[in-house]
Amino acid sequence: MPASTRILLLAHGSSDRRWCETFEALARPTLDALPEARIAYMELSEPSLESQVEQAAAEGIKDIRVVPLFLAAGRHLRRDVPAMLEALKARLDIDVILLPPIGENPRLAHALKGIVTETLET
Amino acid sequence: MPASTRILLLAHGSSDRRWCETFEALARPTLDALPEARIAYMELSEPSLESQVEQAAAEGIKDIRVVPLFLAAGRHLRRDVPAMLEALKARLDIDVILLPPIGENPRLAHALKGIVTETLET
Repeated sequence: MPASTRILLLAHGSSDRRWCETFEALARPTLDALPEARIAYMELSEPSLESQVEQAAAEGIKDIRVVPLFLAAGRHLRRDVPAMLEALKARLDIDVILLPPIGENPRLAHALKGIVTETLET
Repeated sequence: MPASTRILLLAHGSSDRRWCETFEALARPTLDALPEARIAYMELSEPSLESQVEQAAAEGIKDIRVVPLFLAAGRHLRRDVPAMLEALKARLDIDVILLPPIGENPRLAHALKGIVTETLET
């Protein structure tokens, strides 16, 4: 895998610190395993998506992939985030791709089955 | 596992049909594997949480467990859903427990690491 790639795990953000702590715990194994990965927030929390993209660009990284920590695509992922990324691409010499929300990935559906099976066993 | 348990996979709901399709796909392996499981929506989509709890009560099921298909607990899970469940418990002879949002489960954090690793390999 090229060291010139940056993965941004994009969460919504909230003024409630507990919200962010949940996303930080969710991201932790990924952040620990993959040096390319960072967390970023769409709004209300830091580090912002904008600051993380700017940081990657400043490091000379041109391949930025945004993995939305969202279960499904609503208004934010269909409209707001693409607009934010277009503005950043227009301003910085980078390539940014927005990947599907994690809830669309079969790995999550499989994990959910494990969670519910566990729930029935307790 | 007791046949007298009902698991409700609770999603937010949306007027956008694509939103619900994502949650139905996310729930599919669980629904296929576990006859106790049903999907329910908090608002804007059917079947509603209320109708699914009423249905379980009508079937004589007293042990209802709600698994939130949410990554983290915001206002809905801290306030709105508990209030909905309290009102249902006051009206029906049932026991309902609200479990943590799936995003707090280590299985999801592990699945996320798999998704991101896969993303880096393509």
